[in-house]
Amino acid sequence: MIEQLRDEVFQANIALRRYGLVTLTWGNVSGINRTRDVVAIKPSGVNYESMTAADMVVVDLDGNVLGGKLRPSSDTPTHLELYRAFPSIGGVVHTHSTYATMFAQACREIPCLGTTHADHFNGPVPVTRFLSAEEVEAGYERETGKVIVERFSDLHAEDTPGVLVAGHAPFAWGKNSADAVQNSLILERIAQMALGSLQLNPDISALPAHIQQKHYQRKHGPEAYYGQKKP
Amino acid sequence: MIEQLRDEVFQANIALRRYGLVTLTWGNVSGINRTRDVVAIKPSGVNYESMTAADMVVVDLDGNVLGGKLRPSSDTPTHLELYRAFPSIGGVVHTHSTYATMFAQACREIPCLGTTHADHFNGPVPVTRFLSAEEVEAGYERETGKVIVERFSDLHAEDTPGVLVAGHAPFAWGKNSADAVQNSLILERIAQMALGSLQLNPDISALPAHIQQKHYQRKHGPEAYYGQKKP
Amino acid sequence: MIEQLRDEVFQANIALRRYGLVTLTWGNVSGINRTRDVVAIKPSGVNYESMTAADMVVVDLDGNVLGGKLRPSSDTPTHLELYRAFPSIGGVVHTHSTYATMFAQACREIPCLGTTHADHFNGPVPVTRFLSAEEVEAGYERETGKVIVERFSDLHAEDTPGVLVAGHAPFAWGKNSADAVQNSLILERIAQMALGSLQLNPDISALPAHIQQKHYQRKHGPEAYYGQKKP
Amino acid sequence: MIEQLRDEVFQANIALRRYGLVTLTWGNVSGINRTRDVVAIKPSGVNYESMTAADMVVVDLDGNVLGGKLRPSSDTPTHLELYRAFPSIGGVVHTHSTYATMFAQACREIPCLGTTHADHFNGPVPVTRFLSAEEVEAGYERETGKVIVERFSDLHAEDTPGVLVAGHAPFAWGKNSADAVQNSLILERIAQMALGSLQLNPDISALPAHIQQKHYQRKHGPEAYYGQKKP
Repeated sequence: MIEQLRDEVFQANIALRRYGLVTLTWGNVSGINRTRDVVAIKPSGVNYESMTAADMVVVDLDGNVLGGKLRPSSDTPTHLELYRAFPSIGGVVHTHSTYATMFAQACREIPCLGTTHADHFNGPVPVTRFLSAEEVEAGYERETGKVIVERFSDLHAEDTPGVLVAGHAPFAWGKNSADAVQNSLILERIAQMALGSLQLNPDISALPAHIQQKHYQRKHGPEAYYGQKKP
Repeated sequence: MIEQLRDEVFQANIALRRYGLVTLTWGNVSGINRTRDVVAIKPSGVNYESMTAADMVVVDLDGNVLGGKLRPSSDTPTHLELYRAFPSIGGVVHTHSTYATMFAQACREIPCLGTTHADHFNGPVPVTRFLSAEEVEAGYERETGKVIVERFSDLHAEDTPGVLVAGHAPFAWGKNSADAVQNSLILERIAQMALGSLQLNPDISALPAHIQQKHYQRKHGPEAYYGQKKP
Repeated sequence: MIEQLRDEVFQANIALRRYGLVTLTWGNVSGINRTRDVVAIKPSGVNYESMTAADMVVVDLDGNVLGGKLRPSSDTPTHLELYRAFPSIGGVVHTHSTYATMFAQACREIPCLGTTHADHFNGPVPVTRFLSAEEVEAGYERETGKVIVERFSDLHAEDTPGVLVAGHAPFAWGKNSADAVQNSLILERIAQMALGSLQLNPDISALPAHIQQKHYQRKHGPEAYYGQKKP
Repeated sequence: MIEQLRDEVFQANIALRRYGLVTLTWGNVSGINRTRDVVAIKPSGVNYESMTAADMVVVDLDGNVLGGKLRPSSDTPTHLELYRAFPSIGGVVHTHSTYATMFAQACREIPCLGTTHADHFNGPVPVTRFLSAEEVEAGYERETGKVIVERFSDLHAEDTPGVLVAGHAPFAWGKNSADAVQNSLILERIAQMALGSLQLNPDISALPAHIQQKHYQRKHGPEAYYGQKKP
């Protein structure tokens, strides 16, 4: 079971890179087994070329290393905070993908300007506040998770599968590590398209609510009809 | 005959992806056999990697599935509306290609700024209006086709082989599915070049009409002389 | 000798595409043998995938086809006009490459903003005027060549190996077809970098003249010292 | 020992190109052996395709060629000036990479807008002044090195592993040639992301100092905890 989780998380890390979302080692994916509350995550600062499934580090929800010879990603405390706060998620991704990071650095949320966005995010992609000096001091990576959770006090993690950390970069999540990677890619594409649309029309307003709702519901609502029937 | 249509449509779907016009499953191509009025179209939400020609779904012009084990693309009613309204077209493509979608989201038509555009579109690339809440309710995908047809009340589908649906993304069409894919690529490239030209010169006006006409006619007019003589 | 010219021009056309300067069939390269005054050029509207060296069309300076079964590029009269007016050039390239075309469509010359530009173009990349309706009527492609030559009345083709045709796209040239392709790539790169620099600093002025001259002369002047000594 | 240096520098030049930082021959990497004070550097104007490790030119710190049949890069005097002024560096890279060059041409420093930047540069990426006509005359490439060193009068080369030369392009450096290439890639990515962030928010201010410091120190400070423990 642990081996399967390790393998899934390894494959998801490789996919992240294949999608062009990672420069050097700037990205990491984790996945959780909710039955045992164990998390597999990419090791810190290791090259994608030489990485194997066995290099994935296994930790519990308090960050204790249960298996693997390497240090877990330095962002592990952020991932764990998200798993604790959002019980429905099974995978977390962090990248510095180019266009999503542009918005994070500009401290601007990504407004829902089109159906590509509405198909996957039920509203704007939110942006957190900056961490205070005290929070940075208290435990930077864990506090990063906490400001994300704080930002979601009136949002649902299932409806908004990603966030921009102010001055930093995106985090995304999903049902499992593969789904989280996919949401990370979607976030990057909608960021790129929003940048262009805002250049073409700085006064653009969000997609009308009835179209936003239609698109989100046709993929995610109780009567979703996109894709093939699940057996 | 059906097998040939399926194969053509499959190849066209693959080409769409090879041209970089598709992220994940955000795109679909169909083709029609006008003798029998049957349409082959990509199945909904299926991966390009594992897709085969046999997965193409065959439907009639009312959307009844005639063959194939999978559900057709959720955008099928839009395609069918276009085939019914534009008798001269033989293929339809829908993508969320990056630059064309930027214009669609900004609700801006693409003005004809150069000969690349004039070679293929006889005037601006038009943008539809938003669907009303009632239209969304009545049948979102079919109504999407109807607002396109409405926008073409004073345009010719042969002269303007594509459109931007407001807040959504482009549709393109052509003589057959391969030609429609090519027009989809052309639309993406002229969108990208128009974005840059508008950034360099926001007050730019359209290409002089005599040059627009010359370019369009040398490729598409009765005395076209571009390319090799058709045998 | 003709076979060698055909092969060179074929290789140059292939290189043009490998550099990402061509979408579909939007580009063509020619080369001239000045001893015999014969020009080899890409056939019109033929796919790069299936093209062979034998498909290159051979014409004289009046455009008479001397060899090859296919029609020459529809832009052949432009190429020939340039060969007649600029005796020192041995190759001509036409593309609709993305960034250079953005400037051509915006009718803006590319100012010399940096040493990358100064290394290869001795001053701005000029832009022509639009052709008049009469000129379009009289022979569009040949008149395109003539407005380029007109624009060069106070410029030297050797010092400025390319131009933007207003509302159309770039032409570039060089000592031979391979060199012309290289200048076409350089023009594309300096266009892209100029677009970004102008976005960062709209009031930017050109690179100081003493640096422009230094860079141009270290590569092209009588005491050039860039690269390896020619044997 | 010299062979090893040549090989390292060759591999670093190849990596530079694989990262997409080089068009044609616009880039060069060198590395130094501090025990013997010898530098290996790319030859001038040689194609990456045909280049071998044996083509790397070996020079002393005064620029005398000690080995290799080819001329060293015309930028060699700039590299040597940096090695003399910054004793802690072991590799130097020069490119005309697209986004960093946009900033250099616009004569704008790259402000620290996010943690990607703060992870690697301890403050903005600085830009030099233009060289005067006298400096260009006196020895262009060496004086280019001197204006970089002048710009660093109140900066540390270890904390700021790169610079933009006004109207020209970036230089980057590192512990060795491979590390310098990596910093060159990082500089390019943060330039691209800064361009986008500035477009989204022209009034953006730098990342709060306490977050900048945290990120820089967690990778580079005495208690760095990013990556694996060094054995």
